[in-house]
Order: sequence, then C-alpha cells, then structure tokens
Amino acid sequence: MSLLVTGSIGIDTVETPHGRAEEVLGGSAVYFSFAASLFVSKVRLVGVVGEDFPSTFEKVFTERPIDVSGLERRRGSRTFRWHGRYEGDMNVAVTVRTDLNVLGETGPAIPEAFRDSRFVFLANTHPTLQRDLLGQLRGAELVFCDTMNLWIETTREELLKTLAAVHGVVLNDGEARLLTGRSNLIDAGRAVLDLGPRYVVIKKGEHGVLLITADDLFVLPAYPTTAVRDPTGAGDSFAGGMLGYLAAMCDDSKRAAPRQQALDAEASLPPERLRAALARGTVAASFAIEDFSLSGLRRVSAEALEERLERLRAMSGFR
Amino acid sequence: MSLLVTGSIGIDTVETPHGRAEEVLGGSAVYFSFAASLFVSKVRLVGVVGEDFPSTFEKVFTERPIDVSGLERRRGSRTFRWHGRYEGDMNVAVTVRTDLNVLGETGPAIPEAFRDSRFVFLANTHPTLQRDLLGQLRGAELVFCDTMNLWIETTREELLKTLAAVHGVVLNDGEARLLTGRSNLIDAGRAVLDLGPRYVVIKKGEHGVLLITADDLFVLPAYPTTAVRDPTGAGDSFAGGMLGYLAAMCDDSKRAAPRQQALDAEASLPPERLRAALARGTVAASFAIEDFSLSGLRRVSAEALEERLERLRAMSGFR
Repeated sequence: MSLLVTGSIGIDTVETPHGRAEEVLGGSAVYFSFAASLFVSKVRLVGVVGEDFPSTFEKVFTERPIDVSGLERRRGSRTFRWHGRYEGDMNVAVTVRTDLNVLGETGPAIPEAFRDSRFVFLANTHPTLQRDLLGQLRGAELVFCDTMNLWIETTREELLKTLAAVHGVVLNDGEARLLTGRSNLIDAGRAVLDLGPRYVVIKKGEHGVLLITADDLFVLPAYPTTAVRDPTGAGDSFAGGMLGYLAAMCDDSKRAAPRQQALDAEASLPPERLRAALARGTVAASFAIEDFSLSGLRRVSAEALEERLERLRAMSGFR
Repeated sequence: MSLLVTGSIGIDTVETPHGRAEEVLGGSAVYFSFAASLFVSKVRLVGVVGEDFPSTFEKVFTERPIDVSGLERRRGSRTFRWHGRYEGDMNVAVTVRTDLNVLGETGPAIPEAFRDSRFVFLANTHPTLQRDLLGQLRGAELVFCDTMNLWIETTREELLKTLAAVHGVVLNDGEARLLTGRSNLIDAGRAVLDLGPRYVVIKKGEHGVLLITADDLFVLPAYPTTAVRDPTGAGDSFAGGMLGYLAAMCDDSKRAAPRQQALDAEASLPPERLRAALARGTVAASFAIEDFSLSGLRRVSAEALEERLERLRAMSGFR
C-alpha cells in the first residue's frame, strides 16, 4: 500500500439550508484521505497549513490511518480559508469568500519517505504545481488528477501538459464540457481520452458518475440519499473512495483485499475493478454529504458501507 | 392487446444545431404510437386534427399497426402547430410559436370500439380533459398520464384529481420538483406517490430515468447515443416504449411476449417487469432523437432494438 494525496487543507465556513458550520476542517486532501482510509491501511497526506491551523484539527487525523508527516505547518503563514453557501437544491456552491493564504505561496514538497508512492491523487490546484509534485513521485504507477474551470480557462496549455502526464482524470460535467467544447458528455469524455488520460471519470452530482475508457462505458447513479446536509467535499470523497479501493486491491496488508494483485503500469486496469472502485467512491461520497465537515465520513462503519454498496447494486439492472 | 393513447397530433417546425425541419409530423400521441408499435401489435390513437392535416401524414401511420379510427379530422378547424428551437446542449426547447388551433376547442371523443382499452396513456393536456377521456374508458386497467408546468401552476387542483385517478405518472425532473416543492428527486418522487399514483417515473433527459414505487427504486441511464439531432418527442417515445412493452407482456398475439400474463388491476406490477419496460422506453427514445420528426422511429429494426437493449444492460452493473 502506498496511496498519496496532495491538495488543500483548509478551514471552511459553510452555510446550507440545513445549518451553518463555522471554521471547520475542510480541504480536498482532507476529504480524500478520510474517504480513502475506509479502504486502505495507510494514506499519505501532503499539504501546507499556516501557524493558525488548530491542533484540534490535527488530532482528527489520528482517528484514521492517515500519515500526516507530509503536512507542513508553515511559519508566518495562514491556513487556506473558504466560506461557501449552498441554496435550494444545493447543486452549486456560491463562494462567499476565499482566502488563499498559504495556498498562494510555494507548494509543498513530497517527503523523501513518500516518493515511492504507487498510487497518487493530485487534487485540484494549479496544473504546473500538479506536474511539479508528480515529478517528485518517481514510483507513481497510477496517477489521477482533478482540475477546475479556472485552470481550464486561464492555464489551458499547462493543464494539457498535466493531463498528458496522468493515467486518469476526475472532473465534473461542466468542466468536461468546458475543456472539450463538446456538450454531449460521452463525446466530451472521449475527447478527454484523446488528451492523454486512459481513465476519464465525469461526476454529475445527483445524477451519478460516468466512466469512459477505450474499452468501457459505465454509468453509475448516485447513492439515493435524501439526507444531504452539506455537499462540500463530495467530489474529493468520491475520488478518495475510488483510489482507496484501487490501492487496496493491490495491497497485501489489508484484509479487505485478500489477494495481492500487481498493477502493471502499461496495462489497463480491468474494467470490473474500475467499476467497483467507482461504486466505492459513490458510497463514500454519500456519507460525506450527510453532515457538515468530516462528521459524515468520521462515523462510517464497515457494515454501513457494505449495506450502501448492496443498495446501490440493487438500484440498477434489468432484464 | 388494447393500448390506447390520447394526445396531440401536430405540425411541427423544429430548429436544432443540426438542421431545420419545416412543417413535419409531430405531437405526443404520434411519437407515443410509433414507439409503442415497436412492441405491441396494435395501438389505438385518439386525437383531433384540422382540415389542413396533410393526407401524406395520415399515410405515415399505415406503416405501423396504428389504428387511427379515433383520429378526428374536424371541419373548419386547423391542426395544432408548434415551432421550437433547441440550442447548445439541446436540453431545453425554446418555443418560437404555438398555435393551439383545434387543441383549443372541444377535446376528442373515444370511439365506442376503443372503450374497452385495457392500457391507456393520457398524454399531456388539460387535466380536466384527461379525466373526461378516462371517464369514457371503462375497461382501463393500467393508466399512465403525463403533465406539464403549465397545469401544475395554473390548474393544480384539477391535476391532483387526475393524479388520484391514474396508476402511474411520467414527468420530468423540473415538473416533479414544481409539483411537490421537494428539490431532492427521490423525495419528490415519494411525495408524488402520496398523491395517488402507484408508479412514478421521473425523466431526467440525458441523465436517464428514475422509477419510484412503494417497493422499488430503479435508476436507469439514458442510452449513450452521441447522435442526437432533434430531442422532440423523446418523452412521449419513452412512454410509448414503456407502455407498449407492458401491454405486450399481457398480449398473447405478439411474438415478442411468449407468455400471456394477466394483469391484476389491484395488484402491483412486478418490479422486474416495470424495470424492463423503462429500458424499452429508454431505447425507443434513443431512436426518436436521432433524427427529425418520426424519421428515427420509422427506421428501427428488431435487431437494432435488441442491440441497444444489450448495450444499455452492459453499461451498468458492478461487483
């Protein structure tokens, strides 16, 4: 097992029709780590916070097998802060305020001990920084990245270089359309394949996810939770569940994956394994959005996880 | 077999990014009939046109087992006309012009020979007219209706009476939200169940359909066609495929349904049969949207139908 995530660690203030959470733990790398830790025996987290990062937040990581030796607490800097609001159907976050703070400075360095990581998730950040981080990861065998509209619009050429360097990409429907200029999502997904990634995962929020590879087209509905309280972190929790499962399938030290399966970097992942990974991501995200901050993910039991997987299976299929 | 549809028969002018069709055959009952005729040995069509309805359009019905003895050609009246435009991702039709014409007059009458129809689809029209038509159908065992925002907003009480009188309803996501005030679609679907219908089908366009009953929750993706030329009639073609299949399953004269299965009006339809019906509707709609007017549905072969069902099956499912 060696799954590494680089991304933001932040202090969020979130308002939804169901309540308000003030100055809570958030950030892409945090949601990813918690979700991945449902499947894998260790997650390596790389990111930077400021001097103001509460020690109580650091303690939260100890609940799960999350290795925070790549978490840099930078002197004289302040932690990234985001204040967002969801209204109505909560499908879109309105940003009230963003303070980049330490995220506007030099990026983190990958600790020497982490450079052999085989599975890597480059959460959303400047595509040049994504590539710099990837350059420090010589052992990477399966790399997924995320991105956002901002980079598609302002640093397209850099983003294209990053996409050419990764195996997979996770992006939402709007981003897939913006990136490719194709309105049909299957067309858009295939156009992203042409940019380099072998695995294209398009997130459609309440409508689920789409997997597009050269050999497979897989459509998975979202888990039918009606108890959505805070959608923050849904996408990163999805990615964490997905890559956590894929890493666990190659992990001999984790009971959840009895067989050690070597990952051939040049071969494609079996479609069945990818499909199964998307299902785990979907279920992880369903827990994340049921409460504010990490509360939903922190209380997931193995039984609840299995039950939701079974329910998701039962929702599709016909003769 | 006795499947009857009441709805509009119109002359459409449609513009999409892929072309323009001028004064072509359209209307909800027309799309429904063609799609249903892929599964069932006879469809009974009830609707009204004006003196201007081209005889060439009437000939089109003879290609399929569609009984047009309920098609009234009213003297001194003009046929319903709709001019619409689809832009960008073609998810929403912009109405350029609507001439209700004969649809603004007295509704059609159900011919005596049609009053024993067991399966009925009341396509979108004023809910009072839907109930009047249903009152003439004493043999109806399974009745589905459609509706639209206009009736939800302007004749809500009448619509609620209609919903209380049918077994199933087919509506799109926006309509389900407007009708129930619930933004979560599963919540919304369950709230519609409380209004009377036993079977609630929510259409989500490119994201597929959702079936909500007391016993089942089924999510089916749309067929992944990338060749959408004109989305007009997608919803009615879906309903036609769905009810055509359900009727065929109770039809001993149609080879597609080898076993005669009695429909117990008081019992619920088996979830598997409903799921299978939604899949047939999805595939029928996929053909309808690949060309203008009825052109897509007119050229469907049994082989192409089976092939798409198989592809739809292969798209979902995971371990």
